[in-house]
Amino acid sequence: MTLSDITIAVDSMGGDHGPSVTIPAALRVLAKHNTLRLILVGDSEVLEQELRAHQSTVDRSRLTIHHTSQRVEMDESPASALRGKKDSSMRVAINLVKDSTADACVSAGNTGALMATARFVLKTLPGIDRPAIISVFPTIIAGKSMHMLDLGANVDSSGEHLFQFAVMGSVLVSALENIPEPKVYVLNIGAEDIKGNDQVKQAAQLISQSNAINYAGYIEGDDIYKGEADLIVCDGFVGNVALKTTEGVAILFIKLLKRAFYQNIYTKLVGLLAKPIMKMLVKWIDPDRYNGASLIGLQGIVIKSHGGANIAAFANAIEQAIAQAEKNIPQLISAKVEHLLKASSKINPEE
Amino acid sequence: MTLSDITIAVDSMGGDHGPSVTIPAALRVLAKHNTLRLILVGDSEVLEQELRAHQSTVDRSRLTIHHTSQRVEMDESPASALRGKKDSSMRVAINLVKDSTADACVSAGNTGALMATARFVLKTLPGIDRPAIISVFPTIIAGKSMHMLDLGANVDSSGEHLFQFAVMGSVLVSALENIPEPKVYVLNIGAEDIKGNDQVKQAAQLISQSNAINYAGYIEGDDIYKGEADLIVCDGFVGNVALKTTEGVAILFIKLLKRAFYQNIYTKLVGLLAKPIMKMLVKWIDPDRYNGASLIGLQGIVIKSHGGANIAAFANAIEQAIAQAEKNIPQLISAKVEHLLKASSKINPEE
Repeated sequence: MTLSDITIAVDSMGGDHGPSVTIPAALRVLAKHNTLRLILVGDSEVLEQELRAHQSTVDRSRLTIHHTSQRVEMDESPASALRGKKDSSMRVAINLVKDSTADACVSAGNTGALMATARFVLKTLPGIDRPAIISVFPTIIAGKSMHMLDLGANVDSSGEHLFQFAVMGSVLVSALENIPEPKVYVLNIGAEDIKGNDQVKQAAQLISQSNAINYAGYIEGDDIYKGEADLIVCDGFVGNVALKTTEGVAILFIKLLKRAFYQNIYTKLVGLLAKPIMKMLVKWIDPDRYNGASLIGLQGIVIKSHGGANIAAFANAIEQAIAQAEKNIPQLISAKVEHLLKASSKINPEE
Repeated sequence: MTLSDITIAVDSMGGDHGPSVTIPAALRVLAKHNTLRLILVGDSEVLEQELRAHQSTVDRSRLTIHHTSQRVEMDESPASALRGKKDSSMRVAINLVKDSTADACVSAGNTGALMATARFVLKTLPGIDRPAIISVFPTIIAGKSMHMLDLGANVDSSGEHLFQFAVMGSVLVSALENIPEPKVYVLNIGAEDIKGNDQVKQAAQLISQSNAINYAGYIEGDDIYKGEADLIVCDGFVGNVALKTTEGVAILFIKLLKRAFYQNIYTKLVGLLAKPIMKMLVKWIDPDRYNGASLIGLQGIVIKSHGGANIAAFANAIEQAIAQAEKNIPQLISAKVEHLLKASSKINPEE
């Protein structure tokens, strides 16, 4: 798909900040890509009001408002969102992907509700049992990023599920990062074959036997950010703990750094001198740049932004949606899975 | 137990550096506590040679060498260590705890072998199904530390196992940190009751129903280091990933910080000025100070030092052993479990 054909549906009411972040972010992306079309989904009155505040930059010819009367709350249960919010901005944005009005949708809304609704509306791809959450992370090697899944869509993933995650992740990384054979690792608690739980061992066996995946072995938590892996596969409980622990340690580090610089007149002075250096450090890690996780394995593209995303971060989530629509990620995954299923039926014709 | 009665067995051959770290560390601790007795376990010739290098500081009256002919390699399998290394420094140090010659033992040797050997020789306490690995961590709040278990002894822990970890951990934290009712959290991937896997939900239910534990709720990965929790309970696979991810992020941060300071003449100059501040930062986190995890739930005290520990770090692991011996941690756990079992048999007399 070329950029000129792409339409993205934006859940404009989602996230901690709602339209005050989603609208300026949408306008920023619209201005950057001069053939892109956006559908802003939400309360039309509120959205029009927010748009008026940015009047000078609005190109209305490529921007549609799709009115909805409801909003999924950030702490609402998936069941309540699914049953009671059929005209929510989240649900309707996903519906627009389902009926091919949009090529992808983006939401900063509550993760549980988004997952449940996306799965219910879009369904998983043939041959895929469960969707997963995949995201991209920085590494120690400058310019080298790493993808990891699942980050919390599934708990208690079996070896077969982890294998499917590896297939889907390989397709995505290969297409988005232009890596012909991404190096795939399985997250474990030891590099030796005897370590780990049964699911991880079974996954390693399935992945290493498949020609579709460039399996590189087990990886431990302390090697995640070393830049060797293109893709790391794990259960959603484990991946979510790893992701959030990373956030926790980063916050700990930044707070301790600030405390160290605020000790006395000398350290404060050095802190002042070090400010541009610290800014550079933050720019390297740049959480905004890495905003935008995907719900992978569905018949459609759904991008999940961090709930607390600022304008730059939410704009990056929309960019993620564009990149995945350009590459037709769900179709690529579907083709790969179909190929694998055919290959395995040749080997085991009875199955 | 008072300090004057305490004897610690030191696996002097273990770790990446062996006697060149374990012996000076042992001598440092011996000099600090003037009634402590140490048994240095290992190749007597090698140990004597290392001792001669530190001749001036050696008090031989409180120091014994226990000769052993074998050494467990750092990459040796638990099965090989258990079956083939019956006269290893690791095995004999644990034997000395078993026959009450020593009150605790310390090893920087291979974790898998140490766990398997300790469990085989010492056995679990009555009422405890599985030993766990517990360690202490710094938090954002100055002077406040946090304990976490299991860090890798068990994969696929059931809700009942997690409950036992909570009981053991509460007893240890209460005794070592002088906190009458430590705040216990269960690591999960969301703060809501509906989230998480079945094991975690069952654990939360068991823990919240028990008077023996001050249950505070679920905690997510990004809140681990915020200082609210005294104890965090999780499965060993998950805990190990959290622990190692923490190490990985810390290394990432330090490397990026160095890179930021090494960019040009200005940043290098600021880096020079910032050096004492960075040292202070590292001192706060101080991985040496937090060295020394415990294998908890056994009929004896076994402290696991990091394999790469330096002298200061290994000395801290010995200090951990002393602290636990002083408090009789295994006896305290045993008493608590016995009390719980009696209480539950009163409620369910048929069981």
